[in-house]
Amino acid sequence: MNSSPGSKTLPTIHDVETAARRIAGQAIETPLLEFPGLNQQLGGRVLVKPEQFQRTGSFKFRGAFNKIKHLTELGGGQGGVVAYSSGNHAQGVAAAAQLLGLPATIVMPADAPAIKLANTKGYGAEVVLYDRNRENREAIAGDIAAKRKATIVPPFDDIDIIAGQGTAGLEMARQVKAVGAKLDAALIPCGGGGLISGSTLALQAAWPGLPVYSCEPAAFDDTKRSLEAHKRLPVQPGGNSICDGLLSPIPGEMTFALNERNLAGGFALSDDEVLAAMAFAFRVMKLVLEPSGAVSLAVLLSGKFDAKGKTVGLLCSGGNVDPDIFARCLAVKS
Amino acid sequence: MNSSPGSKTLPTIHDVETAARRIAGQAIETPLLEFPGLNQQLGGRVLVKPEQFQRTGSFKFRGAFNKIKHLTELGGGQGGVVAYSSGNHAQGVAAAAQLLGLPATIVMPADAPAIKLANTKGYGAEVVLYDRNRENREAIAGDIAAKRKATIVPPFDDIDIIAGQGTAGLEMARQVKAVGAKLDAALIPCGGGGLISGSTLALQAAWPGLPVYSCEPAAFDDTKRSLEAHKRLPVQPGGNSICDGLLSPIPGEMTFALNERNLAGGFALSDDEVLAAMAFAFRVMKLVLEPSGAVSLAVLLSGKFDAKGKTVGLLCSGGNVDPDIFARCLAVKS
Repeated sequence: MNSSPGSKTLPTIHDVETAARRIAGQAIETPLLEFPGLNQQLGGRVLVKPEQFQRTGSFKFRGAFNKIKHLTELGGGQGGVVAYSSGNHAQGVAAAAQLLGLPATIVMPADAPAIKLANTKGYGAEVVLYDRNRENREAIAGDIAAKRKATIVPPFDDIDIIAGQGTAGLEMARQVKAVGAKLDAALIPCGGGGLISGSTLALQAAWPGLPVYSCEPAAFDDTKRSLEAHKRLPVQPGGNSICDGLLSPIPGEMTFALNERNLAGGFALSDDEVLAAMAFAFRVMKLVLEPSGAVSLAVLLSGKFDAKGKTVGLLCSGGNVDPDIFARCLAVKS
Repeated sequence: MNSSPGSKTLPTIHDVETAARRIAGQAIETPLLEFPGLNQQLGGRVLVKPEQFQRTGSFKFRGAFNKIKHLTELGGGQGGVVAYSSGNHAQGVAAAAQLLGLPATIVMPADAPAIKLANTKGYGAEVVLYDRNRENREAIAGDIAAKRKATIVPPFDDIDIIAGQGTAGLEMARQVKAVGAKLDAALIPCGGGGLISGSTLALQAAWPGLPVYSCEPAAFDDTKRSLEAHKRLPVQPGGNSICDGLLSPIPGEMTFALNERNLAGGFALSDDEVLAAMAFAFRVMKLVLEPSGAVSLAVLLSGKFDAKGKTVGLLCSGGNVDPDIFARCLAVKS
């Protein structure tokens, strides 16, 4: 294990490899896709890892299953698991707990997308709603866990969660090499930072020094600004975004310790840029992306990162989007 | 080559294998996908071949490139190529001709989906519009070809076209074996019958006697009824369907000769069943399917084919759908 003086122990590539063995056979190995229409538009080569094809419709199953399986291997979990999430972590935890035979309680904002609420219940979890503007979800989850002797499955700031999400990057690296390519850069959506910090461990194990960039909604660009300031900064209050999965108020401690060390920088996207990317994915790539899953594609299509002459690894993180939001991208003029 | 007395020479698995070598490096090798949510709903295992990820957004590029490349290998093609198509064959021929440096003229119905018209022009083809209810597209294409000394690329009734489309089935067979599975049945969309007749050659080379079923819109169920009657029957006049890529009036001569010999039967779907399948693909599979590409999925979800306990190969043929039609599937209640 790698650790910095005074910091928590941080996960390494070995934890990601252990996670890959733990989730094998339960998680989907999502494919690596390439689209001539996208390559042509950018003048580069984009290799897409579509995590909306992961079990539960986003990458979140990877970390949740790794965490809960590890918990059971250590003899824990009898009291079930508790999580708080706007929706994708909720579904990942619910589905992982169901597969492992544990009860799950999920604290979700009352305004979470209907598809995420319905799916979480569909995976057998009990859903407890809270008001995102007035209540503290960590406190609610903590009370429930204490009463039920249940274990909290945190959304990102945890070795097993980070390592589990990193298996997306581990697969991507292997798949990129299998088609005889080499990445020049990678773009990865960033909320709390679990997916990007874990995946970067794996991508930089394959290509040392690979530039990896975080992709965030403009009103929640805490990782971008924290990277620039070299310290964890919270978002400005009062912001909002269509990217319901990326509304984290401040980078995680562990995830930022990794990201500060490993990332090349960050990009911030407007909702219009995200909707345009979702529309392009519909029209040209035939992929359903949720707003949070499309921020990385939006970085390319908006020209914020110039892919000309480069081979870029693009992680698209999920596809759990309600029809009314998707209808908004259908209305975008090409 | 295999041939029946008195009939045209028909393609064989060897032609499909030749086509696979010819299109390698130009066609996309589409992945094989599996969805826990679909498997669970059906109580079986469905292995999905998503041809909407093929270059031009449908399988049609496979046959078009094979045909035109073969033409150039034989020293032909100098006068360019001409095709008639409602849209997916149009795009396939236009893109293949562009890659091979030949001019293409495509005769398309004036009411073809806007995305298909725009994309066909985008691949550099000249588009000639006709009235689907009053004019004969074969005659228009024939006149153009004669004037320009161009070669007609027929939509389905041609050895190279059938063999090219069959590479989708060839890939599927190899990919199914690579995940250690064995098909019990396959469901494939059917318009003129090129895709299903070619793919069945490859699938039955892998699994002799495999039951393969054609999937058609109810008002254009000519292959289903022809299979039952053991002779080519035209559709009833006046019918219509949302499946703009499957509106063929009668099975092809060559395709039906193959299908009569090889298929186990056919299914016919209503537009509502197709829209429900598109909605399921959006919600659960995160895939954009056009109506014609969703008929095979509709066979499973409507219960017309019971997948319980079976491993089913599902070919989804394309994803070129206009936003207004897609919005109709978003409005379907789950």
